[in-house]
Amino acid sequence: MRMFDIIRKKRDGYELSTEEIRFFIEKYVLNEIPDYQAAALLMAIYFNGMSERETADLTFAVRDSGARLDFSSINGVRVDKHSTGGVGDKTSLIVAPLVACLGVKVAKMSGRGLGHTGGTIDKLESIPGFDTSISTEEFLKNVNEIGVSIVGQSRDLAPADKKLYALRDVTATIDSLPLVVSSIMGKKLAADDDCIVLDVKSGSGAFTKTLDDSRALARAMVDIGKRAGKKMLALITDMDRPLGNAIGNSLEVAEAVDTLNGRGPKDLTEICLVLASNMLFLAGKGSVEACRAACEKAVKDGSALETLAKMVKAQGGDVSVIYDTDKFKKAKYAFEVKVSTSGYIYGVDTEGYGRASLLLGAGRNTIEDTIDYSAGIILKKKTGDRVENGDVIAVLYSDDREKFAEAAKVFDASTHISDEAPIARPLVLDRIE
Amino acid sequence: MRMFDIIRKKRDGYELSTEEIRFFIEKYVLNEIPDYQAAALLMAIYFNGMSERETADLTFAVRDSGARLDFSSINGVRVDKHSTGGVGDKTSLIVAPLVACLGVKVAKMSGRGLGHTGGTIDKLESIPGFDTSISTEEFLKNVNEIGVSIVGQSRDLAPADKKLYALRDVTATIDSLPLVVSSIMGKKLAADDDCIVLDVKSGSGAFTKTLDDSRALARAMVDIGKRAGKKMLALITDMDRPLGNAIGNSLEVAEAVDTLNGRGPKDLTEICLVLASNMLFLAGKGSVEACRAACEKAVKDGSALETLAKMVKAQGGDVSVIYDTDKFKKAKYAFEVKVSTSGYIYGVDTEGYGRASLLLGAGRNTIEDTIDYSAGIILKKKTGDRVENGDVIAVLYSDDREKFAEAAKVFDASTHISDEAPIARPLVLDRIE
Repeated sequence: MRMFDIIRKKRDGYELSTEEIRFFIEKYVLNEIPDYQAAALLMAIYFNGMSERETADLTFAVRDSGARLDFSSINGVRVDKHSTGGVGDKTSLIVAPLVACLGVKVAKMSGRGLGHTGGTIDKLESIPGFDTSISTEEFLKNVNEIGVSIVGQSRDLAPADKKLYALRDVTATIDSLPLVVSSIMGKKLAADDDCIVLDVKSGSGAFTKTLDDSRALARAMVDIGKRAGKKMLALITDMDRPLGNAIGNSLEVAEAVDTLNGRGPKDLTEICLVLASNMLFLAGKGSVEACRAACEKAVKDGSALETLAKMVKAQGGDVSVIYDTDKFKKAKYAFEVKVSTSGYIYGVDTEGYGRASLLLGAGRNTIEDTIDYSAGIILKKKTGDRVENGDVIAVLYSDDREKFAEAAKVFDASTHISDEAPIARPLVLDRIE
Repeated sequence: MRMFDIIRKKRDGYELSTEEIRFFIEKYVLNEIPDYQAAALLMAIYFNGMSERETADLTFAVRDSGARLDFSSINGVRVDKHSTGGVGDKTSLIVAPLVACLGVKVAKMSGRGLGHTGGTIDKLESIPGFDTSISTEEFLKNVNEIGVSIVGQSRDLAPADKKLYALRDVTATIDSLPLVVSSIMGKKLAADDDCIVLDVKSGSGAFTKTLDDSRALARAMVDIGKRAGKKMLALITDMDRPLGNAIGNSLEVAEAVDTLNGRGPKDLTEICLVLASNMLFLAGKGSVEACRAACEKAVKDGSALETLAKMVKAQGGDVSVIYDTDKFKKAKYAFEVKVSTSGYIYGVDTEGYGRASLLLGAGRNTIEDTIDYSAGIILKKKTGDRVENGDVIAVLYSDDREKFAEAAKVFDASTHISDEAPIARPLVLDRIE
């Protein structure tokens, strides 16, 4: 078998065999296939796509490229949630303790942020002392005792994805459905969960900008998960506006805590209740409606927040910031963004908001960058809101005053104000089983 | 400017600017753009093509990637001929001295063979002592004195093409019109000729298998040459059968000498007369018809062969093999290929004949391989000929007896015998000005 023939076959629009796909992934991980041949194949896949069977084969080859996790020592049903990535998406911090306190286990491996989207691991690390690299034994013990633990992805989990993602990132081959599916599901399937709820974002801040594309992505991932024997469900949720009002690491943790206290923004609260109730439903805890009622109760009686606090403590984090989010280190400087016109916020470029936050120091452009955990944005007005000339629509935070000018410029350019109010769009756009 | 954005732009079907194309070629030659990004761009070009303007820009960037030659010390009009590569194509050895003896200058840089097609330089090196790497001064002096000299391409001529070709070769991106055009014309335009006649091969042994594809390739190259201020003309010639009867280095030199003696195979003689008369026409030596008559005379009176002999002598070659081709070293072994059925040779896979010759030792699979100069094939029957069961249709030559079995198998599989005679196809299929 020769890589050249595999590239040519895909270039010419033919289906690759299971053996050819395995050959590519196995040899690529061993550095026996050079990056330039892999890049040529990725671009050919970008143009010619992959069949359902090829996509599944690629996903399974990625899954099998490293060590697979063993969660068999965890008592009870294991459920995971995965979001395709968005701006201000702190749902994991909320739904993980919420469903855990209701009796299903959440053994979560998360990633770091890169570019305009944040990562759950970075958010958790804004809690002083929080250790996202505890040992596997400790991780499993915490899941059994508390119901939830969140750690960083181990290096040997689906290493093919790490190598492929880095290559896709520099060769303009990120935006390919089979490549996105195999990247997400290859990692997810290397973990050992029983149920997976996917949160497929749709809109300006997401990989899939249209509802049709989001549905196709959700369908492909749900089908592949089922092929691998998992219970699967996908929710397609709106990413035409950021989720909640906070963008930035400790700002988002504080908002997550508010939400678990029953004082969160309406949109964020709603999405979290939908996600959590569907996770519980998939884990066999009753109807979606019954699960939702249970979730609402767990917020009200404080048991969900208590579970978050336990998890933070078990992983060495400073619990005082959870009980009083004012104790988070504040950014040195704040900058108010005011509107210079009156009207309605007709729409926002969510990705632009993410980029503005990145410019303030809340994210990393390259893997080596360090994060300013207190940097970010608090939105005062969101899509659909009426604004008058001079109103503050957002506050930017940073330890570096120099960064405000450019960030504010990007923020402004990403906010579209109009005389008309926009048509309200539901938060949950579809549900794919 | 970032290579990533250039890849994405081409991926998305947009035209690259002159600056973007120059940036790519200049940085790639300096190794400042990695092969994996170049490979992704090449595959995107494979799928989305390039406009005429982009192709011209790419060609000129390749041309300018190294030293450009200066032929201004040559007296008289300088004409070159370039073939897109074929099997048994020894026309350069014939037309170069033929037009030179009629008063136009041929300062020719040629390449080596790789894969199933031979190279003029390898053919010349089968003449004992022939030096294809004489100094530029000597080269120019010979052109002025004899009218013709043929040397190997210098390393610093269009180095971008060398690097790109090697990458295309392993990433399945050879077969792309803009990439073929820029590769051929980038090198040709780095030389300093006034007129270029292109011999675009069409058929089973050529890059362009159909007449339409050949026309498109010819048109693109002629237009780009004109943009660069050259007099251009392309002939589209048949490559559904090898040219002449000899395939292999010294076998082809002997056949070229026979042709210059007026005893060459009909097809080869005809193609050479057409090419040479068009070269002379383009150089302003009169009508194509008048030039053809002059060529026929130069063959008849021996002046063309005399010019070849002078060139061989000037480059240190043993002239005795030119005056008596029997003096070429013979292959140790010969093997007769016989047909096992009766009928007509309906068609041949010219590329297969090339591969059979390669298997006998006449070519190289990798740049490091050494060539057996006396190895090759003499065809006894060609497309359209009637054969009876047991007839010898070819004789294979090699110093290694072990090689006959596989070569004969490939040769057999490439020869299609039928009850019907094929419809005769003209040698020259079109002429593009």
